[in-house]
Amino acid sequence: MLAAVLLPFLCCLSSAAAGKLLVIPMEGSHWLSMKAVLAELSRRGHEIIVIAPESRMLVDSSAMYTLKTYPVPFKKEELQELMHSLALDTFSEKPFLFRFLNTWENFRKSSAIFKATCESLLYNKEVMKYIEESKFDAILTDPLTPCGQIIALHFSIPTVFFLRGVPCAIDVHAAQSPDPPSYVPRVFSLYTDHMTFPQRVKNLLISISEPFLCSTVFSSFESLASDFLQKPMTITQLLSHGSIWLKRIDFVFDYPVPVMPNMIFIGGVNCGQKKPLSQRDVTVPDLLSHASIWLMKLDFAFEYPKPLMPNMIAIGGVNCAHEKLPQEFEAIVNASGEHGIVVFSLGSMVSEIPMKKAIEITEALGSVPQTVLWRYTGEVPPNLPKNIKLVKWLPQNDLLAHPKTRAFITHGGSHGVYEAICNAVPMVLMPLFGDQMDNAKRIETRGAGLTLNILEMTSKDISDALHAVINDKKYKENIKRLSDLHLDRPIHPLDLAVHWVEFVMRHKGAPHLRPAAHELNWIQYHSLDVIAFLLAVVLLSMFISLKCCLFCCRRCFRKKGRASKPTKSKSH
Amino acid sequence: MLAAVLLPFLCCLSSAAAGKLLVIPMEGSHWLSMKAVLAELSRRGHEIIVIAPESRMLVDSSAMYTLKTYPVPFKKEELQELMHSLALDTFSEKPFLFRFLNTWENFRKSSAIFKATCESLLYNKEVMKYIEESKFDAILTDPLTPCGQIIALHFSIPTVFFLRGVPCAIDVHAAQSPDPPSYVPRVFSLYTDHMTFPQRVKNLLISISEPFLCSTVFSSFESLASDFLQKPMTITQLLSHGSIWLKRIDFVFDYPVPVMPNMIFIGGVNCGQKKPLSQRDVTVPDLLSHASIWLMKLDFAFEYPKPLMPNMIAIGGVNCAHEKLPQEFEAIVNASGEHGIVVFSLGSMVSEIPMKKAIEITEALGSVPQTVLWRYTGEVPPNLPKNIKLVKWLPQNDLLAHPKTRAFITHGGSHGVYEAICNAVPMVLMPLFGDQMDNAKRIETRGAGLTLNILEMTSKDISDALHAVINDKKYKENIKRLSDLHLDRPIHPLDLAVHWVEFVMRHKGAPHLRPAAHELNWIQYHSLDVIAFLLAVVLLSMFISLKCCLFCCRRCFRKKGRASKPTKSKSH
Repeated sequence: MLAAVLLPFLCCLSSAAAGKLLVIPMEGSHWLSMKAVLAELSRRGHEIIVIAPESRMLVDSSAMYTLKTYPVPFKKEELQELMHSLALDTFSEKPFLFRFLNTWENFRKSSAIFKATCESLLYNKEVMKYIEESKFDAILTDPLTPCGQIIALHFSIPTVFFLRGVPCAIDVHAAQSPDPPSYVPRVFSLYTDHMTFPQRVKNLLISISEPFLCSTVFSSFESLASDFLQKPMTITQLLSHGSIWLKRIDFVFDYPVPVMPNMIFIGGVNCGQKKPLSQRDVTVPDLLSHASIWLMKLDFAFEYPKPLMPNMIAIGGVNCAHEKLPQEFEAIVNASGEHGIVVFSLGSMVSEIPMKKAIEITEALGSVPQTVLWRYTGEVPPNLPKNIKLVKWLPQNDLLAHPKTRAFITHGGSHGVYEAICNAVPMVLMPLFGDQMDNAKRIETRGAGLTLNILEMTSKDISDALHAVINDKKYKENIKRLSDLHLDRPIHPLDLAVHWVEFVMRHKGAPHLRPAAHELNWIQYHSLDVIAFLLAVVLLSMFISLKCCLFCCRRCFRKKGRASKPTKSKSH
Repeated sequence: MLAAVLLPFLCCLSSAAAGKLLVIPMEGSHWLSMKAVLAELSRRGHEIIVIAPESRMLVDSSAMYTLKTYPVPFKKEELQELMHSLALDTFSEKPFLFRFLNTWENFRKSSAIFKATCESLLYNKEVMKYIEESKFDAILTDPLTPCGQIIALHFSIPTVFFLRGVPCAIDVHAAQSPDPPSYVPRVFSLYTDHMTFPQRVKNLLISISEPFLCSTVFSSFESLASDFLQKPMTITQLLSHGSIWLKRIDFVFDYPVPVMPNMIFIGGVNCGQKKPLSQRDVTVPDLLSHASIWLMKLDFAFEYPKPLMPNMIAIGGVNCAHEKLPQEFEAIVNASGEHGIVVFSLGSMVSEIPMKKAIEITEALGSVPQTVLWRYTGEVPPNLPKNIKLVKWLPQNDLLAHPKTRAFITHGGSHGVYEAICNAVPMVLMPLFGDQMDNAKRIETRGAGLTLNILEMTSKDISDALHAVINDKKYKENIKRLSDLHLDRPIHPLDLAVHWVEFVMRHKGAPHLRPAAHELNWIQYHSLDVIAFLLAVVLLSMFISLKCCLFCCRRCFRKKGRASKPTKSKSH
């Protein structure tokens, strides 16, 4: 029995052949889930080097990896100012044209910053020399800024992409995955996979306009890549060289659509993160029900080794499924009584909002019996009631995992949504920008939450929505069903992510997963040349047959004519 | 440390909530790999009922499941006679037309037998009553005969399909997976995923002709399904209701093409089958290299429980990676000396061949220094040399796993090919029928074997091919590379298969993986209605603009005309 118990572990050991991984991350919340994968890769003995700009926000140094930085022509404050401005724009109640121009200006600025970051890296001789000499086995990068892929192509290093998606479905096209607009809703369309005829018309129009839209967005990267690699290169061509696409997607939440064999789905990688001694998917009562086994709450990393009987299983760390809450949060949660708590956060990038909005929200939250833990760094609203606790930071996933948590008020970022799904907490969504509107729509259509328009919502709307998701059983039931489906998986997404990074490192890519479609142009892919050829053959043969028939007829007719004429002439 | 070691096992225990599974299998070699999955499902405590006809060949009874049979209007001998005739046809050297007519006749006969089998099941009141009352959680079935799916629809039971593929890519279309003929070679085309223009023309023509071809093949099932379910039903519509497609495919061997989220790839499920105490992926030296751990070759299923230190790991059964060879085979392999052995089998369905061919093959095999283990039940060829051992049955996977095995002569059935890939044994392929030609072509293009034409091959061709795959290092290197890629997977295909069967049983299907494309017709799927509408709008607006312009011009012109006329008249 014990042998069977032990062997799965031995498998893991064997595959831990240490390699050298270069990481070129994306700034912002994307970094947080990537870091979880790096932690596991580091634990397995790989040497990890993260290369990031000197001016940055969330990308931090750690004992798990070596952080190498390079100078960039902007300061950290400029970045922060830009993020701040982006966040405030969402709450702006100015006319549409004004907001649009403002957004466009911010967008232009961030594009310029991303490009400057990439340019500073590519033309930094010292760093490039270091990369060349380091002989990395693979590059792990976020393709939203394709800088990592430019370096990968330059030094012929295989890449693993870590992403949710790239605007205009560039990731989908670069991987040669079919993408029928008839049932795959475009980003920002807010449609589901079941569309009416007018919706399908709009969806097709968006899909047609995407290449033009995104060529503007990515043109600066395209020229940078073309210059650096010294051959013309579109963003789609650039990304088509990725070996493996690790996509933070799960079909419990995202719609099922055609995919490719080199796409690996790791939605939920960020929640219930694996700790070396954690026991994530099994609760203790589950185990006890399998009699004849003693579950010993001890762990020999901590206790002195002592004899054990074969049916004694040490499960020290079984409670590490989620981190223990820090004392101050534990105290708040315990004091919340039978009504429990509500977790409220608008994401790592937005922590303050206009005072008018803050007062409205405060008023609404004051009306519910739950204690509300609100991540908020702005000026304290004057009407703050007792049940609202403002904090500068909160352990979101661990709070959501607490049985006393009744609801989650979120901006609908994909990380937060997945954490709510993992922990089966119904949501009130206040989407701000990016894919958040689509995420909110999806959760709403699946009956696991309610969406509010951040600009138009009134205090009553907020308290009504919160009241509904907490007290109307159907929201909890629906999110519980999604959670059950999501957690019922043969392997944890983190292990999946780690496996495929290691796979690319071990085998120098994954060429056997690369579809031959990459070698075809658009006309060939859709068999248009073949169809044209077959049509030409059919038309030509029809033409020839017709000509033959006509010729024969004419001959016959002429013969008849000739034959009859002499008769006629004879008869005369 | 030990806690970490033990936890993976605990996960497995928790998911083993027992369910009730109905299995409607397919006769022949397909049954063999399905049985491996049933063994694991049974070990995990599920109640399994296999329903099969009274007259059958390989589907056998076992302690792992309950076998229920039903009468059919044909005898086992008729089945065997048909198989025998099918096999002999492949070796027939008669003119093409004669062979074609013969094959067609056999095909008609097997179709009739499959239909009779299904009809006997569907209209067997006793069995149907039993199924209705048994409240099965799921049906596991081979969709090559869609009888299981008809029953599933009738009783609203979710299905898991277990297959390599269905002719004419009906499985691909039923799952709504895109299937571009520009780089997805059709079955029987013998093309790779890189096709020239003439090949793409032929591939498209095959793809266009498939629906017509297969409607003939499956029409009897379609009318049976329509009658039984009392609504018109095509084979594609019927199969579109499957929850999960377990496909015996791995992209090391098959070409990467678009897939759908409910397709799970379990290629290689049949080799290195998991034994409860086996340790498949790790060799003992691997483990020992991780010091401080004692690997104890003991197992408490056999020995009396006694105290162990935490760093003592019981690996009793570590040698069960493959079954120990039966004594007679072990003796033959050991006696083969430095040259090792060659394994030769034409599959479970073909065990005798025409004497003329047998003599040719014997002559070729006699010329190699290896000992040849040949599964052959026909008349013993008169020229049988010492190095050929004829056997009525051989433990194919275990023999291929033996380090002394140098080559595998095979008909190219997918089971055998995967076993050769698992065990990194280069192949000489003699494809007979079905998908075997395509399989052989794939192995050949990947440089892991050589293909011979069973009708045209001479004795010299055979010995040359065998000599090449054994002595030319590139074949071994290529199959080793494929093997390394194939075995480097985050989870064993058998565990994957078991997980998804259990998933469907637990959640009564997998509706969240069902693409919305199922609700669209062909015109809607390809957005043809939308394109027509947009074209109409564009044309109409162009027409209206043109009319407006013309109207304006005419007005202007007329005015001018009128204006000029009086002037003219005045001037006169």
